[in-house]
Amino acid sequence: MNSSENKIIILGAGLVGSLLALFLVKRGYNVHVFEKRTDLRLDKKEEGRSINLALSRRGLKALEKVGLMPKVISHCIPMPGRMVHTIDEKEDFQPYGKTGQQINSIARLELNCLLMDAAEQAGVFFHFEHFCGKVETEKNEAYFTHQGKTLSHQASFIFGADGAFSALRKAYMRAPRFNFSQQYISSGYKELSMPPTPKGEFALDPNALHIWPRQEFMLIALPNVDKSFTCTLFLPFEGKISFDSLQTDKEVNSFFEEHFSDAKQHMPNLLADFKNHPTSSLITVKCFPYVQNHSLLIGDAAHAIVPFYGQGMNAGFEDCFVLDRLIEENCGLSKKVLHAFQEERKVDADAISDLALYNFIEMRDKVTDPLFILQKKLEQRLHKEYPKQWIPLYTLVTFSDYRYSEALAIAKKQQAIMDEVLNIPGIETAWKSIDLKEIIAALD
Amino acid sequence: MNSSENKIIILGAGLVGSLLALFLVKRGYNVHVFEKRTDLRLDKKEEGRSINLALSRRGLKALEKVGLMPKVISHCIPMPGRMVHTIDEKEDFQPYGKTGQQINSIARLELNCLLMDAAEQAGVFFHFEHFCGKVETEKNEAYFTHQGKTLSHQASFIFGADGAFSALRKAYMRAPRFNFSQQYISSGYKELSMPPTPKGEFALDPNALHIWPRQEFMLIALPNVDKSFTCTLFLPFEGKISFDSLQTDKEVNSFFEEHFSDAKQHMPNLLADFKNHPTSSLITVKCFPYVQNHSLLIGDAAHAIVPFYGQGMNAGFEDCFVLDRLIEENCGLSKKVLHAFQEERKVDADAISDLALYNFIEMRDKVTDPLFILQKKLEQRLHKEYPKQWIPLYTLVTFSDYRYSEALAIAKKQQAIMDEVLNIPGIETAWKSIDLKEIIAALD
Repeated sequence: MNSSENKIIILGAGLVGSLLALFLVKRGYNVHVFEKRTDLRLDKKEEGRSINLALSRRGLKALEKVGLMPKVISHCIPMPGRMVHTIDEKEDFQPYGKTGQQINSIARLELNCLLMDAAEQAGVFFHFEHFCGKVETEKNEAYFTHQGKTLSHQASFIFGADGAFSALRKAYMRAPRFNFSQQYISSGYKELSMPPTPKGEFALDPNALHIWPRQEFMLIALPNVDKSFTCTLFLPFEGKISFDSLQTDKEVNSFFEEHFSDAKQHMPNLLADFKNHPTSSLITVKCFPYVQNHSLLIGDAAHAIVPFYGQGMNAGFEDCFVLDRLIEENCGLSKKVLHAFQEERKVDADAISDLALYNFIEMRDKVTDPLFILQKKLEQRLHKEYPKQWIPLYTLVTFSDYRYSEALAIAKKQQAIMDEVLNIPGIETAWKSIDLKEIIAALD
Repeated sequence: MNSSENKIIILGAGLVGSLLALFLVKRGYNVHVFEKRTDLRLDKKEEGRSINLALSRRGLKALEKVGLMPKVISHCIPMPGRMVHTIDEKEDFQPYGKTGQQINSIARLELNCLLMDAAEQAGVFFHFEHFCGKVETEKNEAYFTHQGKTLSHQASFIFGADGAFSALRKAYMRAPRFNFSQQYISSGYKELSMPPTPKGEFALDPNALHIWPRQEFMLIALPNVDKSFTCTLFLPFEGKISFDSLQTDKEVNSFFEEHFSDAKQHMPNLLADFKNHPTSSLITVKCFPYVQNHSLLIGDAAHAIVPFYGQGMNAGFEDCFVLDRLIEENCGLSKKVLHAFQEERKVDADAISDLALYNFIEMRDKVTDPLFILQKKLEQRLHKEYPKQWIPLYTLVTFSDYRYSEALAIAKKQQAIMDEVLNIPGIETAWKSIDLKEIIAALD
């Protein structure tokens, strides 16, 4: 046990844990991060289970506040839109927003190393191979197993940035009236690789998030700075077309041949990847409260979401940004700050959680629906002519400073109006001459 | 470790565990029930935290199948309706159904003892003070702490009838893709007593479930065979009027004086009860799957619900009834039976779970709403004239053989029709002469 004066324990040296550490050390705290794994930086091997990340406004704002924005951006590849690959091998580019608005592809491992380096340089202490077996929040004490021994550490505050299966949250589960839910979707995912072409070029247009939407399943590909793409197959675990039904090389081959032939030609390691990479599941975690005594759940530990809006990391980084703002407003970390944090963030976490689940349907199914495409075009026109009155949902979530909960509320209102507009007979041709002013008026 | 041939382990000797044991021993299995507490029958003291139970059709059907119906009924007091106590001390009796339809008040302890006696006489082995610390479903093995020692038992099947905080379910939590949620409502409850009057009579009409509905909170009272009533106060934990705000005797007294003065005059132990009885919370648990290897969650362990529809025990007993039917249909217990059970029961458990949450609002708030009362009367007329076409929701849930999920679906349809009828201008007086045939026609 050591002195807990001004000391902060963060569980988890992942993206959120490392960024949080950096925010807190910059505010003068004595920050100790405990991570159950070894130091990522010593053995930079990919685990074959990470969807590439799409950094957008919320994440960038947080990185900017700690001065890391330029460095991170240099590791990113901008993706201004989706490239939709239809079953007949056509490509349809759908911009995410206006010119200049883009999401940014970055490898999780790269970003994590960069954050840990920055935190360490700023004075954060990292303790690797420390498995947190227990937290006693009433005593501000966490217990770790390290090299076969049990150690305990006390601190003024304990943060659980330890992901969807948080050890801190396990302590909360024993407390009275802790609301908790974990829900898996019926699809899983598998990471696959698409290396550079034999000539050393990107196999596909690098400035897009590529999607092969096939209703019940989909393949996506995000670019890397080494000119490879990280592909992810999302597919039901069970059923007629499912991971269960793809057992042999022949089955995998013919599945890809049938549904993703244009991608398959660029995937020389397909069979090996398919065999060697795990099939992972996708969880949504909701809970409340986030606070117990002097401890706080943050990031995935508080609100793990499915990856389909590309907002998991961005939401976690925004958590750090909001917490830092509250620390500033309240002249230091306190129980009051933790409570203010959960009051503010819970509704936003719930909103992005629901939006992320919805976006799976949009990505795998709707992006090829003519009415959906028409709506996107119409909304882009509306946004262009009335940039402050009509902001499409994707823009609200990805490129704006609106809270997630506000974005959801605005989107519901806008969708109700759009549903009526799309119901107009002959809208397929009439949309170009439609009276935008009337649509805007309906917002009031 | 002992031979597991034909052996069944049931965790929990509560209502569902004891009844399940009885069903299984009657089918020829070697049934062992493990209970963490001491034998209830040796020390029959009430814990001051049990809402009285309202046994209705689903529970009775299960008891009938094991031959216990007559005995149990002799310990019950029939409640053919609600007695609503308004703030101005008026009483309004609202029948639950038709003449002869009633729910039955019984003390949890009495019923539990009776079930354990019957199970034991039929050959079930009860093991008390066995705390289940771990279950390994892949090995069909459960580990218990008993008198300081750790024991393990193997069996062909393991049932978790161990309630809302099930030890078996903890094992499931570690499995991949286990969906789970626990949600507390913001109100808690406290048991209070209303002894017989000095003359040895019931203080209130014994043949009713008494409710003092006060919008955000309520008091209820259920009769006991000893002519006492068991009262339960449901009240928010926090807020202006809450358990938090009732700290002193004076505060408790004036709260009851203001809101429940007619009940208070019959509650001589109010202050002592209020101080000594715990304030308990109300949890809803949903999960899936119920099956893992050769184990099954049943009753509250699978689907704890709030008590406001009086269906927690009835749903658990119906679980046993359904399982027994499936065993019969499949000529014995098997993994297939367990899977058939969860396929059938999950939707029904979800339905009654949602209905129970809804009924809190109905009980504490709606029962004094003139439109609600009018709807009840109108539905009774409809049910009387068209007994098979129009069955009110309460009747579907409480007195019918419809599945909970069917009841919910029918109710939604009926409520949509009722909402229109209640919108008719002047319905307050017009309802008596309304054309019932037209309402029935709207069902198609």
